[in-house]
Amino acid sequence: MPNFRLTLEYDGAGFAGWQVQAGGVRSLQGELEAAIERVTGVRTRVHGAGRTDAGVHAEGQVANLTLETTLAAPALQRALNALLPPDLAVVKAEIAPDAFHARYHALGKLYRYRIWNAARPSPLRAARVWWVKPALDVAAMASAGALLLGTHDFASFQAVGSDVASTLRTLTRCDVLAVPEPQVPEPNARGEIEIRVEGSGFLRHMVRILAGTLVQVGMGRREPGSLPAVLAARDRRAAGPTAPPQGLTLVRVAYSDSA
Amino acid sequence: MPNFRLTLEYDGAGFAGWQVQAGGVRSLQGELEAAIERVTGVRTRVHGAGRTDAGVHAEGQVANLTLETTLAAPALQRALNALLPPDLAVVKAEIAPDAFHARYHALGKLYRYRIWNAARPSPLRAARVWWVKPALDVAAMASAGALLLGTHDFASFQAVGSDVASTLRTLTRCDVLAVPEPQVPEPNARGEIEIRVEGSGFLRHMVRILAGTLVQVGMGRREPGSLPAVLAARDRRAAGPTAPPQGLTLVRVAYSDSA
Repeated sequence: MPNFRLTLEYDGAGFAGWQVQAGGVRSLQGELEAAIERVTGVRTRVHGAGRTDAGVHAEGQVANLTLETTLAAPALQRALNALLPPDLAVVKAEIAPDAFHARYHALGKLYRYRIWNAARPSPLRAARVWWVKPALDVAAMASAGALLLGTHDFASFQAVGSDVASTLRTLTRCDVLAVPEPQVPEPNARGEIEIRVEGSGFLRHMVRILAGTLVQVGMGRREPGSLPAVLAARDRRAAGPTAPPQGLTLVRVAYSDSA
Repeated sequence: MPNFRLTLEYDGAGFAGWQVQAGGVRSLQGELEAAIERVTGVRTRVHGAGRTDAGVHAEGQVANLTLETTLAAPALQRALNALLPPDLAVVKAEIAPDAFHARYHALGKLYRYRIWNAARPSPLRAARVWWVKPALDVAAMASAGALLLGTHDFASFQAVGSDVASTLRTLTRCDVLAVPEPQVPEPNARGEIEIRVEGSGFLRHMVRILAGTLVQVGMGRREPGSLPAVLAARDRRAAGPTAPPQGLTLVRVAYSDSA
């Protein structure tokens, strides 16, 4: 039975998150499983690499599913894209080795968090950014982010009520960068700031709590050097607020055969 | 009475166009005039540099209005942004010379038309691009676009039923460029194509008809060298289809004091 590996892009605004939930809410897994059933007549479980939360976007989420079908991967991709709603698409479909599992075999994930840092709102960016009005010190945010690199207990950066065996995670990248200015000259424009976080795995809300904490550093409410103490506290209350979901995008998932 | 010059950003999806119309449809001019009346108690006419159509976006539309008020420009900007809906914002507000008129004094406008050229849809781009599936020849489109530079009778590139004194217009820029690929590697990705058109003034639907015609060139349905004949025909039927509005953005308006 072929094991299909799908790369997915979606606009998270209209979804209650990745996972199928009770109560008929709209989930990415649910939309995919329904479309697959319409194409093939078979109901099968779709396994996602990461369970993105409600409102979080993806450019390169990965999922796999085994399916009794004679359809080749490109034909399955075309058929699914013809049936899926406009806010969810299959970027790529491939046949994976039988043992491939999108979640268990993921070696790492890259997330991007976008901030619109300006006194005035940006209608063309609103659906993809967190609008932060006070001027942020990007250099301070970058030096704070660098202190999170490596393997640490990230319990302080985990949503309250989560239940995982270990809160140890490894961050291999935590960059904070100012994005080039828009073409319209604006005297008070501070522009976009992007946080790029890559790691072996992430706790629930981890990237958003990290973004919320770095924004407090950028505002001068926390010292960049205070991040090791936040980690050491192993207490959600030691970190900053959870940044809103619309700024977050799962950019890609890494496996041993695809950097 | 101060003459305010406003620079505006908007997501065109929710508007029936720039201009106030009968029947209570939502217009940019109408939303602005209503917000100004709420701030100052005065109903005044807002003059836009260009009458963008329904669904067309702007990063740098310019408008002016005269208003009996003691509010300084930055205070007016803040007050308007606090009242305006999330799909419309004032990027900049300044006091202009008494005689300044956003439309009559505009020396030129820069538009951007975005195309998503790939076999599969892109949910994160859908609201801002025209999705064209067949692979486009960007070099052919660019050479066709270059033939439109200069002063010509653009009657073939005007919406049917328009009534203007002259259809002579001058294009100073008509670039077609492939935008750098996304971060997710895709075997069949062809990516984004951007058309940038700058000129002294534009006829109704001109940029969109131009984009529709260049896309036919990119598909191989028209020769790049056929563009002068399209101009010479002075007949809407000689040009290609009108590209959809969501791909179009008014980037900036030039005046003698601001390149």
